[in-house]
Parts: sequence; structure tokens; C-alpha cells
Amino acid sequence: MNPTIALLTDFGLDDTYVGVMKGVMQGICPEAHFVDITHKINPQNVRQAAFALLNSYRYFQSGTIFLIVVDPGVGSTRKPIAVQTHDYVFVAPDNGILTYLLAEYESYTIVELSNRTYQRNVVSNTFHGRDIFAPAAAHLAAGIPLFKLGPEIEYLFKQPIPHLSIEGSTITGEIAHIDHFGNIITSIGQMDWVDPETLTLHPRFGKLRDPIRLRAAQVSTTINHHTITPIQVAYSEVERGGLLLLVGSSGYLEIAVNQGSAVARLGVSIGDRIEVQIGV
Amino acid sequence: MNPTIALLTDFGLDDTYVGVMKGVMQGICPEAHFVDITHKINPQNVRQAAFALLNSYRYFQSGTIFLIVVDPGVGSTRKPIAVQTHDYVFVAPDNGILTYLLAEYESYTIVELSNRTYQRNVVSNTFHGRDIFAPAAAHLAAGIPLFKLGPEIEYLFKQPIPHLSIEGSTITGEIAHIDHFGNIITSIGQMDWVDPETLTLHPRFGKLRDPIRLRAAQVSTTINHHTITPIQVAYSEVERGGLLLLVGSSGYLEIAVNQGSAVARLGVSIGDRIEVQIGV
Amino acid sequence: MNPTIALLTDFGLDDTYVGVMKGVMQGICPEAHFVDITHKINPQNVRQAAFALLNSYRYFQSGTIFLIVVDPGVGSTRKPIAVQTHDYVFVAPDNGILTYLLAEYESYTIVELSNRTYQRNVVSNTFHGRDIFAPAAAHLAAGIPLFKLGPEIEYLFKQPIPHLSIEGSTITGEIAHIDHFGNIITSIGQMDWVDPETLTLHPRFGKLRDPIRLRAAQVSTTINHHTITPIQVAYSEVERGGLLLLVGSSGYLEIAVNQGSAVARLGVSIGDRIEVQIGV
Repeated sequence: MNPTIALLTDFGLDDTYVGVMKGVMQGICPEAHFVDITHKINPQNVRQAAFALLNSYRYFQSGTIFLIVVDPGVGSTRKPIAVQTHDYVFVAPDNGILTYLLAEYESYTIVELSNRTYQRNVVSNTFHGRDIFAPAAAHLAAGIPLFKLGPEIEYLFKQPIPHLSIEGSTITGEIAHIDHFGNIITSIGQMDWVDPETLTLHPRFGKLRDPIRLRAAQVSTTINHHTITPIQVAYSEVERGGLLLLVGSSGYLEIAVNQGSAVARLGVSIGDRIEVQIGV
Repeated sequence: MNPTIALLTDFGLDDTYVGVMKGVMQGICPEAHFVDITHKINPQNVRQAAFALLNSYRYFQSGTIFLIVVDPGVGSTRKPIAVQTHDYVFVAPDNGILTYLLAEYESYTIVELSNRTYQRNVVSNTFHGRDIFAPAAAHLAAGIPLFKLGPEIEYLFKQPIPHLSIEGSTITGEIAHIDHFGNIITSIGQMDWVDPETLTLHPRFGKLRDPIRLRAAQVSTTINHHTITPIQVAYSEVERGGLLLLVGSSGYLEIAVNQGSAVARLGVSIGDRIEVQIGV
Repeated sequence: MNPTIALLTDFGLDDTYVGVMKGVMQGICPEAHFVDITHKINPQNVRQAAFALLNSYRYFQSGTIFLIVVDPGVGSTRKPIAVQTHDYVFVAPDNGILTYLLAEYESYTIVELSNRTYQRNVVSNTFHGRDIFAPAAAHLAAGIPLFKLGPEIEYLFKQPIPHLSIEGSTITGEIAHIDHFGNIITSIGQMDWVDPETLTLHPRFGKLRDPIRLRAAQVSTTINHHTITPIQVAYSEVERGGLLLLVGSSGYLEIAVNQGSAVARLGVSIGDRIEVQIGV
């Protein structure tokens, strides 16, 4: 079976950067298949990338190699690494971009990508994607064992997790992502439906541990003078153009407009706090 | 031969949605090849998607499976379907997105994608692309027969066709698409050149049936006080920056600026009516 | 080994143009792999495309076929061509888009793509990418010899090279590209580091021939009242938000902001002149 390399970067598609990395990888592992997860992470936004990765990696088949390059510290002392779990390998800078997804694993092995044999002959100070990360991913795809790429290391740099807390009847989260449609995805999740009226919040972030049972009809939030309640099952539960709360496809509480843009209506930004009131 | 899955959506490339669908499909059919037609249909614009699909599907090889997700009704009662013609399979929501292209076929078979065996275990209410449509496309690519995916149904939801009418010496159409270059593509087509001076309009839309023969030199249109005439053979027939009428690469009457943007000059929008005068 | 076709165009990703070209190529050579270099060259900007191509083609494996379509003269008398070097084939319009990269080759063979057998049956006047260039690339990928595609020709249309000159202690170049991050890439290169303090400029453009040795600490430039000096080794050498000069990953002098956008700060455009002062 052909190996798959899945790419997630902040390189955008305006330049030749992504194409050049693929050219380099094909030269090392011609049979690799490439799948672009996205290249439109906001420039240098490591936490946005970590959240995007957390919510996408599980959909790839076992054995996939992830090439992840959002790298504001390129050329500094931050280490290039590869992390192997029982099902995947993640090639990335050690800047916390893997923090959220590795919290889902009990064990993994980390190596520093220091073996020059598996880098390009000349390594620039500004494009390790081309010179270190892409070659590493391609060599792994071609069957080179992880430990050939460099020595095992123990400690990873960590990013702060998205905010999630509860006090009295208020759940506080943050806006973790705003998508192409203008949907506002919060850090409040993961939510599962129990029956048509009740859902359970299994806190994925913050210091919360225990599941919280919520009645969809009693959840509300107020943002810039718009109060939105209750949690709906689908976009189509409200009229076209109507604001709604719902549980998005990755299990987070989401604010949307049916066939419209919630961000255009509410004017919020990634990182903003959001408070949700829950009834009794 | 490896099966091809061609994708057309309004998901954009800023998020992980397209990458996640490909990850899901690779898990089901690792040998599938993906070709992106476009992911930049305007959000929820089913008619624009139907027009784009009409003008692109025929360039794909026989056997291609099309995964088409512009789905404003996701989570509502609209059905997920697959439509098989003698040469292709189209996997899509039943919202009329296939109306224009299916008008080119005499017969086809429709099934409703209701067999849970070929969906993801948990189906969200907001991302059927990932949970229903992509799995269906991948299972079809892997050789599962159409009828396994669900029962045959007879009737499809239809979208209104683009406007095209003629009254006296006036042909009325609408603006069906505006491309990346700013070229304005109308619904007036399909046009074939007969000789350097004469062309034939074979009406593709509207209630018109019979071909209409036009002299290129006698066709003119007036938009926002700019009169454009005659129909030119190529962009280079006018000076750089000049407005022109021409027959575009899919056979529609098109308004363009040589090495510039017609939409920036004329300020029109998709859906606007356009009137063309024809001489005698 | 599956043949690779690498694509570089100004078609953008909003339309179906790129997908349609891939569909056409798959019909001719189903085993071809496609790698997108970029489709976001500024519309009709042949020189920007030539520069992007110069700095990306070498990263692809030998045998790669390049499909390059930035074609303001489509439908005019400019010729469609294919150029074979000892390692690659470039399929493109003869408008100078290959000027910069072919300067790196001592010999190559050019054919005009005039054999109708290897074009689509009907050739439009506005989309030779679909009707001539993509079919040629796919037939070459499928093993058709170059000379079947048309007769050998001798002369290529040339684009002016990017400006690069030296007078006294002033090096003058131009802004050749501005990337997605807002980094400003100049035509001043190729630069190699000799030791941590000294670098050598091997002029790639202009009438300069001999290498010039520079001390990084003595190079400065002034743009819109911002003076930037010296040349740094990496983005991280200055504080976050700080302007810096550095040698970019393709060897050109580059103006950047650490974790920010230099173009937003300086307000320059592609094609603008840039002067650099060098100390003694």
C-alpha cells in the first residue's frame, strides 16, 4: 500500500512552498500520496494549528505520516522532531503544535531530527519545511526507521490548552476557530447527545474532569447583545439567516447562522472568551 | 486502474474539511486518486455549483466518481443520493445540484444513501460530507455496487435553470459565473462558430429549442453605460485593457477585458440579468 | 515509476480550470501524479511566474513534466511549446515564462505544439491550458516522444531579466516577489554564506558576472524611511515584530518582519526598485 503523507501548514497557496516540499518528498519517496489537510492556518498561529490537528488527525488511516509546519521559531533553537504513536507519525517543530493531540495518547516516542543524512545537503535558516521536515517525512514514508533520524528525547515544549472552566451555572470557554462559512467554533466540548433533549459535556480542555449533563433547552449565551438559546440539532432548525447554538461536527459548542455567517453578525475573533449559561 | 474521485464543494481551503473527507476516503479505498475540481463555490450557492459541474464533468474519464457537497440543507430532510449514468457516478445531496448536468442524460439510476453500513458509525448533523457522502464515494470507488448503498428512488429535487429567452431581437440571459480573472460568464450558450463571421446559438437553457444563427458583428450588449460589440474571436483582438464580447471556452457568451477584470469595470453580480441585441 | 506532472498557473482555485486540466490529463495518462506548485501567480504576470519557476523547478525529481500556463496571449500568434532539457520537460506558452530557468541550461530542445493529433478535437481560443498544454503534458507523461508533438524550433521569446546592478557601493535590484507571510523577496542573489560574518553574492541576473564578497554587518537598505541593517542569520535574531534583512531560502536578499508582515509595514509592490548600501 502506498504511504500517505498528510500536510498541515501556514504556508498558504500563493507561493511555491508547498509544491517545493512535495517535489522534495517525491524525490525521496516517489510512491508517497499527499493529502493536504490545510495550508491556511493563520501565519505563525501554533495554537490554531494544534486545534485543527486535534480535530482532523483521527480521520486518517493508520500508518499516515503527518507533516506539520507552523514554525515561527524557524532558525532558532527550537528542535525539529518526529513523534511516533501506535498508529501515526507526526513530523513537526517542537513548539507545542502537538500538545493537544498527544494528550489523547498514553505513550509515544520522540526523536530529534538531527541526523544530517536525512536532511537536505544545505539547510537554510528560513525554510526547514523544505530542508528538514519534508525530507524526514519522506524518509519515514520510504521505510527508514524512526531511530535513524536522530536520538530519542524525552520532553516536549507545551502550548497552553484552550480555556474551559465552570463556575456556578456559567461555563467559560474561548473561540478556538472561525471557519470559512463564518461558523464560530468554541473550546466547549466534547459534547455528545444522550437523547433528543439532553447532552453530555465531556470536558476536553481545562481542569474539568467529570462529564456534565446539560439540557439543550436551557443553554444560552449572549454575545454583543445577541442572546442565543437553546442548543439546536441542525442548522435547519432555525429560519434562514437565524442565529443558533449547536454541537458541531467535532463535538464543540458552535455558534452559526443558518446559510449565513455568524462571525459577520457577531464580530468576534479567535481567542475571545465566551460564556454560556446553563439552567437547572 | 486506480479509481478517481473528483471533488466539488463550497468548503473552501481554510479549514480541515476537505482534508478530513480525503482521510476518510483513503481509509475505505486506499488506492483512490483525488482530483479537486474546486472547493470555492460561494457558500450554499447550489445553482453556481450546478453550473460549474455542468461545464466540467465531461472532461473526466469514464468511471470517475464525483463527490459534490454544497449542502445548505444538511441535517434537514433533504436526501443524500448517488446517481449513476452510463459513464459516471455523482454522489451529492438531493437539492438540485445535479439538475443541469442530468438534463444531458436520457437515463440514470438514483439511490438514496440510507444504508448505515456505508456511513460512518456516528453521523453528525452538520457534516454529511465526512459522514455520509465521502464514505459513499469511497465505497463505490472500492467496488461496492450502487444498489448496496440504499433503495432506488425515482424523483429528484430540481433547481430552476439559468434564464435564457429571446423576444424580437433581444436575447436575455443571466450572469451564471464570474471567474478568478474577472471574466463574466453568461447563460447565453452554447455557441459554436460556423465560419469566421457567423455563429450558432444552441440554447442550453430556457424554453428555447431551435438553434439561432447570429452574425458576430451584429451582437452587442450595454451594461452600466458600456456598449460592447461585436463578438471577438480572442482576447487579443482588442487592445490591452479593452472590453470585449467573446465565446468562452465552455461555449457561453462572455464579457472580458483583455489582460484585465471585466467585473471590476462593470460592477455586476452573479444572477444579474443581461440583455444582448442582435442585428438582422 | 508513475510520471509526475507539476503545475504552475495563474488560474487560481476559485474556478474549475485546474480541475478540468487534470481531468483531461487523467483521460490521456491515468497513472500520472499531479503536484500543484502554485495556481496563484498574479493574473497574466509572466515575469513573476518565471521567477517562481526558477526557484522551484530544481526541487522536483528528474523526469518531471512541468505544465506552466500563464498565458495573456492565448488565442493570439504566440506559440505553444515544449522544451526538453537533460532532466525535465517544460510545457508552456512561448511568452518568456521559461527565460530565467533556461539560462541555467547549456542546451535544450524546443518543439512547437502544432500536431493536432495531440490536442483536443476542438481547440478554444481562450483555454489552451485545457485544449493544448494539458494534453501535450499528458501525452509526454504517457511516453509519446517530444518530436511527435510538432516540429523543432530554434528561437524563444524572452522576458527581460530582473534588475540587478552595482555602482560604487550601491547594489540596485527589484522586488521580485512578495510571499503569503508578507516577506519581500528581491532580485539580489544568489547569496551564499562563507562564514558567520561574510557572504558572497553570485549575481544571478543583470550584467554582473563576478562574485562579490560582502560583510553582513555592513549591508543596509532604506525603504520608506525605515533603515534596515545588518543582514541577520534568521528571523529570530530580532525581536518579534522587528524588521530585518536576511538571505532567504532561495538565496535572495529578503526583507522580513519576525512573525509579522514586511509588506504591511513598508508598503512596497512587485517590480519596485530597491537599493542596498554596502560598507567597505
